[in-house]
Amino acid sequence: MALTSEQQVELDAVKEQRFETKRVTVPELEEVLYEPIPVLDHGFIRVVDYMGDDAAIVQAARVSYGAGTKRARDDSGLINYLMRHWHTSPFEMCEIKLHVKLPIFVARQWIRHRTASVNEYSARYSILDREFYVPDAAHLAGQSSTNRQGRADILEGDEAKRVFQILKEDAETSYDHYEEMLNENAEGEKLDENRSGLARELARMNLPVSFYTQWYWKTDLHNLMHFIRLRADAHAQYEIRAYADVLHDLLERWVPITASAFDNHRAGAANLSKNGLAAVRAMLSGKNVEPEDVGLSKREWRELRELLELD
Amino acid sequence: MALTSEQQVELDAVKEQRFETKRVTVPELEEVLYEPIPVLDHGFIRVVDYMGDDAAIVQAARVSYGAGTKRARDDSGLINYLMRHWHTSPFEMCEIKLHVKLPIFVARQWIRHRTASVNEYSARYSILDREFYVPDAAHLAGQSSTNRQGRADILEGDEAKRVFQILKEDAETSYDHYEEMLNENAEGEKLDENRSGLARELARMNLPVSFYTQWYWKTDLHNLMHFIRLRADAHAQYEIRAYADVLHDLLERWVPITASAFDNHRAGAANLSKNGLAAVRAMLSGKNVEPEDVGLSKREWRELRELLELD
Amino acid sequence: MALTSEQQVELDAVKEQRFETKRVTVPELEEVLYEPIPVLDHGFIRVVDYMGDDAAIVQAARVSYGAGTKRARDDSGLINYLMRHWHTSPFEMCEIKLHVKLPIFVARQWIRHRTASVNEYSARYSILDREFYVPDAAHLAGQSSTNRQGRADILEGDEAKRVFQILKEDAETSYDHYEEMLNENAEGEKLDENRSGLARELARMNLPVSFYTQWYWKTDLHNLMHFIRLRADAHAQYEIRAYADVLHDLLERWVPITASAFDNHRAGAANLSKNGLAAVRAMLSGKNVEPEDVGLSKREWRELRELLELD
Amino acid sequence: MALTSEQQVELDAVKEQRFETKRVTVPELEEVLYEPIPVLDHGFIRVVDYMGDDAAIVQAARVSYGAGTKRARDDSGLINYLMRHWHTSPFEMCEIKLHVKLPIFVARQWIRHRTASVNEYSARYSILDREFYVPDAAHLAGQSSTNRQGRADILEGDEAKRVFQILKEDAETSYDHYEEMLNENAEGEKLDENRSGLARELARMNLPVSFYTQWYWKTDLHNLMHFIRLRADAHAQYEIRAYADVLHDLLERWVPITASAFDNHRAGAANLSKNGLAAVRAMLSGKNVEPEDVGLSKREWRELRELLELD
Repeated sequence: MALTSEQQVELDAVKEQRFETKRVTVPELEEVLYEPIPVLDHGFIRVVDYMGDDAAIVQAARVSYGAGTKRARDDSGLINYLMRHWHTSPFEMCEIKLHVKLPIFVARQWIRHRTASVNEYSARYSILDREFYVPDAAHLAGQSSTNRQGRADILEGDEAKRVFQILKEDAETSYDHYEEMLNENAEGEKLDENRSGLARELARMNLPVSFYTQWYWKTDLHNLMHFIRLRADAHAQYEIRAYADVLHDLLERWVPITASAFDNHRAGAANLSKNGLAAVRAMLSGKNVEPEDVGLSKREWRELRELLELD
Repeated sequence: MALTSEQQVELDAVKEQRFETKRVTVPELEEVLYEPIPVLDHGFIRVVDYMGDDAAIVQAARVSYGAGTKRARDDSGLINYLMRHWHTSPFEMCEIKLHVKLPIFVARQWIRHRTASVNEYSARYSILDREFYVPDAAHLAGQSSTNRQGRADILEGDEAKRVFQILKEDAETSYDHYEEMLNENAEGEKLDENRSGLARELARMNLPVSFYTQWYWKTDLHNLMHFIRLRADAHAQYEIRAYADVLHDLLERWVPITASAFDNHRAGAANLSKNGLAAVRAMLSGKNVEPEDVGLSKREWRELRELLELD
Repeated sequence: MALTSEQQVELDAVKEQRFETKRVTVPELEEVLYEPIPVLDHGFIRVVDYMGDDAAIVQAARVSYGAGTKRARDDSGLINYLMRHWHTSPFEMCEIKLHVKLPIFVARQWIRHRTASVNEYSARYSILDREFYVPDAAHLAGQSSTNRQGRADILEGDEAKRVFQILKEDAETSYDHYEEMLNENAEGEKLDENRSGLARELARMNLPVSFYTQWYWKTDLHNLMHFIRLRADAHAQYEIRAYADVLHDLLERWVPITASAFDNHRAGAANLSKNGLAAVRAMLSGKNVEPEDVGLSKREWRELRELLELD
Repeated sequence: MALTSEQQVELDAVKEQRFETKRVTVPELEEVLYEPIPVLDHGFIRVVDYMGDDAAIVQAARVSYGAGTKRARDDSGLINYLMRHWHTSPFEMCEIKLHVKLPIFVARQWIRHRTASVNEYSARYSILDREFYVPDAAHLAGQSSTNRQGRADILEGDEAKRVFQILKEDAETSYDHYEEMLNENAEGEKLDENRSGLARELARMNLPVSFYTQWYWKTDLHNLMHFIRLRADAHAQYEIRAYADVLHDLLERWVPITASAFDNHRAGAANLSKNGLAAVRAMLSGKNVEPEDVGLSKREWRELRELLELD
């Protein structure tokens, strides 16, 4: 995540600026404004701008002239009500803009969230940095044999060593060859006066998806929470989850009442199917329930019992 | 556009607030923040919040760490380049939130712009105000005989008088009956203790589309300009154009460089078809051009000559 | 829902056509293709076109070369799995196009679903029909005193009579005046040679939101189900629910496996909050649960007990 | 683009199927239905399904009961009118679903078009094929020195040889190592019984963006044309242009009237800025025009003269 000295100067300058505004302002979020928060080995998330706060949600839901209600207690009640009943549009009234540095394979998952605006650093136009992701030893997971898109135990010993060696060497080699084909290094210096250099938009083709890219990404609060719910979930790949966890921390800074309602009604909530609900009702009325009686498959039955902590 | 005293108090309170922020701030837009700008007879637009400025567009396009370029001249060059080449994503990086009061028939055109967030005042939940639109005499236009969705000369004399009478009397009657069916007035006072009152969600059915509604509406700069281009156009209905013109003024306050690029490359620009372009090239090379030679219909030919001010 | 003889001829013609195609085809849906299905007093829904079937969802989820799996049992398992785990993108791979006639106030709720394409009959360009919605006696509900956007008992006797009188007379009067201002009737005949007639885009302003409009509406299966879930819900206004119920019937014709998974995992499912889940776990382990112990408000507690049929 | 024998069997089966339908059907498009059309060295596009035709656009624009107009001439007039005046919603009423095989770096540009549905082959779940893109000699372009995202002359001789060597060897090596880390080959055979194998979602990280992926991609006609306009443009990277050109051919098969209107009013059209228009008007009235008189920069002036073929 090393910044060039030029980038550091730019960054320091925006962090020093102070303006007066009539807009709603969130001091807890201002504290980290512009500051890169590290993620993985070379990535970061930094908040570049934001609009709205908890009260702005209330204000929009009420189509009011002022700044939400007077009492925080009312705000909380309404926000929880909106969250519980999936009245999502007031949450769209807050907006956040981020600058993110992330491996290409994470970016490919991230971009699937379509209700957002993106400006990505262009490898057609510019030269990418020599920065690529290598998992730390604690995340070098083997393939799960039961879940085709899951992870199993951490690799160790010679197998782990060999994987690290491959990931690093192949990435370094591909970057060396990237520069050679470009006939130029990251500083823009020509390497061999007698060669033209391959077009940037072609040379980048040689880089693996472990390489870092970066983008400005802007979305509204509703879609941010949707992102967090899917990507901080245990089924998401660890590498994108690391970003989603930082986003969750930022959510708590930005809109603490909403974050708490989100934890209760979304992130920590469970969806009970009609059949699952029938099973729970039967259990609570003291009946002995067999999965086939309520139309649950073995897998659904097992998942339900786990959810209810019955075993 | 008369506010209740309670609304006025709310409004005065938010206009007085001052916060310190590190976020980019636009003093010219802050000047009108929260202030209702009148449109038509009872409508308004007021800016409730915003995010970003001209430099934020440059910053996103460059995926930079700081606040755009140092020199305004560079910002302007890049913004014009982006506008000219339809690189629209950096313009999505700015966001604006409005509170709008508008007749229902205007709201029905407005809502067709889907890339926006909306919270509308609910007539299922609340009672609408006795406020409806009546055109002023200068906009009481007759039906065009050549363009089925166009206007012709302004109605005058007895015909105009009769139209005003109908519009006002029918609106007043429908509102009287709305209250009667609700068995309640706008202040929430019950009218007749012996009646239940029709459900609000049904009673509102009696009100004509000239009645005012209001909503919070939030969109990004790219989509705001798209709205203005379509709705400030001469083919748009006058009543929505009145709103689009106010939005254009706000655009100039908010992002003056972008507004100027918009006027040159969008609002004031012309789309020349392939055939139209062939005609212009031929004319400039001194040839005598007949519409059929370049595949232009009579209508297209007439429109092209008007565009080029040839008659 | 009376069609003109010209519309009937058009309709009969398309219903007679038969083509050969290699595309996946759903005979149960073809049976009702083009046929208006009545809704409310003058409205309808008719399916104009569709793309995909249950197998197409499987095919997309597998990115396969053929037509889904060979065995219906596998399709069903995968579709239920996708539904349960909110893997929504394969459901976007099916598309449906409808022609809908509906009251304006219903259209205003419907249009809030933004991920859809719409072409509405234009009252700027054309003259609307003399068709407006009046609830039947069984749906003339009074205002709920406990739920501001809810309905209570059905109005009866004099109060009901008076409401019917108002709704009908005001609608008829407003339409009479609409024609008078237009100086034209629905057949396009001029009424008075000495008057110009008000522009159509202005005259329509006099019509109440009970009047019918119509549109072509196209959406994908994922968004169709989202619409049904929200609008067939008990909290939705009865009038839009009447449309959502027809859409649900069409869903069963079109994609029966998906419709069944939808009923189980969405429409009939319940969202248990983190706190609600804690309460259920405690109950099942035999503990005595007080709402405050698990952070549930009185309202949430009451709703949870209702859901679990505990009273 | 070699298919496995299993894929070939699946493909042959769907190509043989024939159904009867009342839906509008396009024989010219049916001819190529399901058939992979080769693009680049290993890629393809194949149409999997479609909905609508030229007449369906007319039908939606008119909100009609039948199948568009009777006369093709009227359809053409209306479609050209809609295209010319940017009435885009009727074009959204047609839909197409494609199966595409494409290099990852092309997929990364493609996915920026957000108004579309996507199901991508998952490298978390499955093992990617040993297929990667290498430009043919005619497209091995050098870097432009004037346009940072442009191409210059084709590389030749030793420089070209070396580039081919790097691209191939690095891709092969990275794939060998991918299999080694997986401890599994593409056929799912385990390589070494004593190793666990790295998780698929991690191992794929080693593959360069030249590797092929595949997806189902579905969009409407309006957004398809937007894609073609941007990606078949001379400024687009050659590799995505190769796909856009195939899409343009498919457009002509599917909706020939719309394709012709698109060529005239979009693809072959020019956007004249307000200043550019002022310059053309002045020239046509016989005046001598200097760029600064009409506010054109040197670059804009040069581009205008090129557009008008004045040099």
